Amino acid sequence: MSQTTTPRTRLSPEQRREQLLDLGVRLLATRSLDELSIDLLAEEAGISRGLLYHYFGNKHDFHVAVVRRAADDLIAKTAPPASGDPLQRLLVSLAAYLDYVVDNHEGYLSLVKAAAGGNDTLREIYEEARSALNRRVFDDEVRGEIVPDTPATRLVVRGWSAMVEELVLSWIEDPRGVSRDQLLEVMAASLPALVEAAAGPTGSTPGPA
Amino acid sequence: MSQTTTPRTRLSPEQRREQLLDLGVRLLATRSLDELSIDLLAEEAGISRGLLYHYFGNKHDFHVAVVRRAADDLIAKTAPPASGDPLQRLLVSLAAYLDYVVDNHEGYLSLVKAAAGGNDTLREIYEEARSALNRRVFDDEVRGEIVPDTPATRLVVRGWSAMVEELVLSWIEDPRGVSRDQLLEVMAASLPALVEAAAGPTGSTPGPA
Repeated sequence: MSQTTTPRTRLSPEQRREQLLDLGVRLLATRSLDELSIDLLAEEAGISRGLLYHYFGNKHDFHVAVVRRAADDLIAKTAPPASGDPLQRLLVSLAAYLDYVVDNHEGYLSLVKAAAGGNDTLREIYEEARSALNRRVFDDEVRGEIVPDTPATRLVVRGWSAMVEELVLSWIEDPRGVSRDQLLEVMAASLPALVEAAAGPTGSTPGPA
Repeated sequence: MSQTTTPRTRLSPEQRREQLLDLGVRLLATRSLDELSIDLLAEEAGISRGLLYHYFGNKHDFHVAVVRRAADDLIAKTAPPASGDPLQRLLVSLAAYLDYVVDNHEGYLSLVKAAAGGNDTLREIYEEARSALNRRVFDDEVRGEIVPDTPATRLVVRGWSAMVEELVLSWIEDPRGVSRDQLLEVMAASLPALVEAAAGPTGSTPGPA
């Protein structure tokens, strides 16, 4: 093993791997997946490429592990507060999501591209994360009511979540004329508005009493 | 030039090119861009590959020409009726969009993937088409009022259009439990709902009088 410049700590292999994944996630924040190489991680971690290949197998598996970690991170960071006004809790969760995408813009964008562009494994992780975020809507209340879990509302929540992502990415690209608070308000207020639209005249979901 | 099996017609080179593009668009409906080759077009058109290269330069330029043609086609087919109730006109336009994506599913999906996955030229055509569709909202009335053209409403319309695409693609993938009419109603009703959400308490757009 090569000499390293970082101080030796007594970590288990599992802890060491976790630490390297954390570093990978931090590096991904300001880089695309294409730019996140084993070489770069080795340099930043001060350990040999050989050891990294030992931990992660190959570049693709390394990317998958980092993206999975980043997705877990996103899900944890956007957990809504346990109590409070439903719309306020949604707002807090959406604010965390917005901050996450702002802070990890390059990496997030490259994941969206990789997932949409046909990388099946990354698409799967991306879809899983999105499903986990979407499921929250049904576990929780919106406007004082549980959103009924029907095929129509599932579809609408999926559409809403695509819209939220588009709003965030478009706003980051060009925030002129729309404040952060305005953006968050639109994202939060649109969920009950859409659920209501789905419960329209011939909708299959019961409208508010 | 090779012998052809199609009857000779006296077309100008420009008309001939248009005819070949139409054929390319038809072939793309049930195929991904990757599957749409010059060879396939030559076979289907009954003319030589050499002549096709004369018309289209190379595979990439051929794809760009076909996708541009398909985008023009989509814009033309989804033109709302010139008169009538605003929401009804939006519904007619959205129904045409839904039918278009259903009829051209493979090609449409591969364009979305190519545009998202980093093909810059295709992304440009895709964005242009989406902008053209989105601009209609501001040239027209929704719920009896012109949607005010502000940074906030522009962002919201962009988000709405991403949502509509996601709803249509998700519904085609799994239509169980949601009828075509229900889907169309949600897509149409969500636009005024979102514009209203954007005009919320601190929104920058004037709310309904």
